[in-house]
Amino acid sequence: MRDFSADHRWLSINTATVRKQRGEDWPLLDILDACAARGIRAVSPWRDQVAAAGLQATAQRLKSHGLELSGYCRGGMFTYTDATSRHAVRDDNRRALDEACTLNAPCLVLVVGGLPGALAGQAAHRDIAGAREQVTEGIAALLEDARERRMPLAIEPLHPMYAADRACINTLEQALDVCDALDAAAPDGEGRHVGSGALGVAVDLYHVWWDPKLHAQIERAGKERLLAFHVCDWLTPTTHLLEDRGMMGDGVIDIRPIRAAVEAQGFAGYSEVEIFSSTNWWRRDGGETLDVCIERHKRCV
Amino acid sequence: MRDFSADHRWLSINTATVRKQRGEDWPLLDILDACAARGIRAVSPWRDQVAAAGLQATAQRLKSHGLELSGYCRGGMFTYTDATSRHAVRDDNRRALDEACTLNAPCLVLVVGGLPGALAGQAAHRDIAGAREQVTEGIAALLEDARERRMPLAIEPLHPMYAADRACINTLEQALDVCDALDAAAPDGEGRHVGSGALGVAVDLYHVWWDPKLHAQIERAGKERLLAFHVCDWLTPTTHLLEDRGMMGDGVIDIRPIRAAVEAQGFAGYSEVEIFSSTNWWRRDGGETLDVCIERHKRCV
Repeated sequence: MRDFSADHRWLSINTATVRKQRGEDWPLLDILDACAARGIRAVSPWRDQVAAAGLQATAQRLKSHGLELSGYCRGGMFTYTDATSRHAVRDDNRRALDEACTLNAPCLVLVVGGLPGALAGQAAHRDIAGAREQVTEGIAALLEDARERRMPLAIEPLHPMYAADRACINTLEQALDVCDALDAAAPDGEGRHVGSGALGVAVDLYHVWWDPKLHAQIERAGKERLLAFHVCDWLTPTTHLLEDRGMMGDGVIDIRPIRAAVEAQGFAGYSEVEIFSSTNWWRRDGGETLDVCIERHKRCV
Repeated sequence: MRDFSADHRWLSINTATVRKQRGEDWPLLDILDACAARGIRAVSPWRDQVAAAGLQATAQRLKSHGLELSGYCRGGMFTYTDATSRHAVRDDNRRALDEACTLNAPCLVLVVGGLPGALAGQAAHRDIAGAREQVTEGIAALLEDARERRMPLAIEPLHPMYAADRACINTLEQALDVCDALDAAAPDGEGRHVGSGALGVAVDLYHVWWDPKLHAQIERAGKERLLAFHVCDWLTPTTHLLEDRGMMGDGVIDIRPIRAAVEAQGFAGYSEVEIFSSTNWWRRDGGETLDVCIERHKRCV
C-alpha cells in the first residue's frame, strides 16, 4: 500500500469539491490555477464547469499546468420515457466521451440515472427493474462508442439513498454484474472474469463504505475493473442527502483499509477527493478547502 | 395475493406513525382508542410509548379493544464499547422480550445498532465489521432468552443510510445470513434452509425497496423467516434522512409486487404502516393521519 503521508502526489481534486465557494461559482480555470499552485497533480472536472470555461481553454490550461485527469464527470442518466429522450441521452453521452478524449481523461464516470423524472420531483413510473434494464442497454450502446474512442467507462454505483432519482446501480456487486454481462472475457488463471479494460467501476467510498460485501467485491473487480477511487467521509449525523458529505477524517468511514484493498488488486491511480458540502466546505474560501484536502489526504487517506 | 381494496382488516398501525401530532405526544392509550374506533385490528407499539402508558394498562387496553400486535418495537442496539454496556444491553433486551410476551406480540423487532456512540454524534470507532460481529454475538445471546420465552426475533435490515448510527445490518441478504448462521436447520425438500421459527426478518419497504436482490432474498427467506412486513413510501426528494418518509402512494416504491412476493412465500400477517414524518403526517391531527393510512392501505398496498 502506498504511503500518502509525506506528500500529496496521488491526490486528485474533483472540482465539485470547490465549485461554489461562499455562494459564488469558482470558475474552473481559477480552480485549476489554485490546484497547480498547491502542487496538486490531478483533477476531475464536471462537464458543466468545463462548458462554462470552454473545452479548448480547459484543455490548454490543464496542459500548461501539467495537470492530469483522474476521471471526467460525468456521463450516464440512461433512463428515459420515450425514444426522443433516449436518443438525446445517447448523443449527449457521445459528446461527453469526445470531451473526455480532448481532456485526456483516463475514464468517463457514469452516474446511470434513476426513475425517469424523479430527479425533477415527479417519477414517471415506479418500475426500478425496468429502469435498470434501460441502464444496462444504455451502457451497452455507449460501450460501442467508448471502444471506438478508446475511452473506458467507469460505472459509479451510488448510495442506495439515490436509487430513486440519481442512479439505480447501488452496489459494487450490481455494477460488476453489469460489467461482466457487457464486457465479459474468459476467466483468468484464478477464475476471475477479466474484461477488456473498456468497462469498469468507480469506487466512491461515500457510496459503498456501508456494504458488507465491499471487500469481496473489490477483490472480484480486480485491477482491470477498478478505474477510479473517490474519497470523502460520512458524517454522523448527516443533515442533507446530497450536500452534507464530510472531509476525510471527520466521519466514520475507515478509509485506509479500503484503499489497501483496492491497491492490493493493483490499483495505482489517484485518490480523488469529491465532497459536496453546502453545509461546510462550500462556505469557505476555495483555497482553504483545497489546503484542508491536502492535509487530510496525507493524514487520513 | 390478498385483496386489500375492500377493507382494512390486514392493516396494522405502527404507533410511531401518530406518536407526536402537531407538536404534542399522542398518548398510546388514546392512539389505541382511535385505532379501535376505526376498525383497525392491529398495532405495533414502541417501548417508550408503552412505558409512558404503563405496560399493564397497555395490555388491558389492547385486550378490551381486541387489538392484536403485528410486532413490538424494538429490541437491539447490540453494539458496545465495554462490558458494562454490553450487559446493560442484554438486560434491556430481556425486558423488551418480557414486555413483548405480556403484550402477546408475534415477534420482537430488532434494530441492531450501528457504530457505538454514532447515534449521539460521536462514533467510538470506525470498525463496522467489528460492530457487525458484536451484533451477531448479541443476537446469538438474545436468541437463547427468546427461545425460552417462545418470542421470535425479527431482524430488521435498515437502509444503508443508517449503517453508521442505527443499524449495521443493511440488506435482507445480510440479515438472512445472520439468521442462517444462528438458527440453521436442515434444508427442506426444495433445498432451502428453514430455521426454527425463532429468528427471522422484518421486511420494511422503506429500507429494502432499492435492493436489486430484494425478490431473490424474499424467496430465500421463505415463510419461516418472514415475520413482519412494513409499508410506507420513498419520497423524491427526501428532505430528511429519518423523518421524511412518505405515505403509501406518495412516493416511488412499487409496493404491490413486493407484497405479492412476500405473500407468495406464505406470509399472511398484517401489513404495518410505519411512517416517521415530521415534515407532513406528524403535523396533522392524528385521526386524520389514521384515516389517510386506511384509505391508502386499500388503494396503494
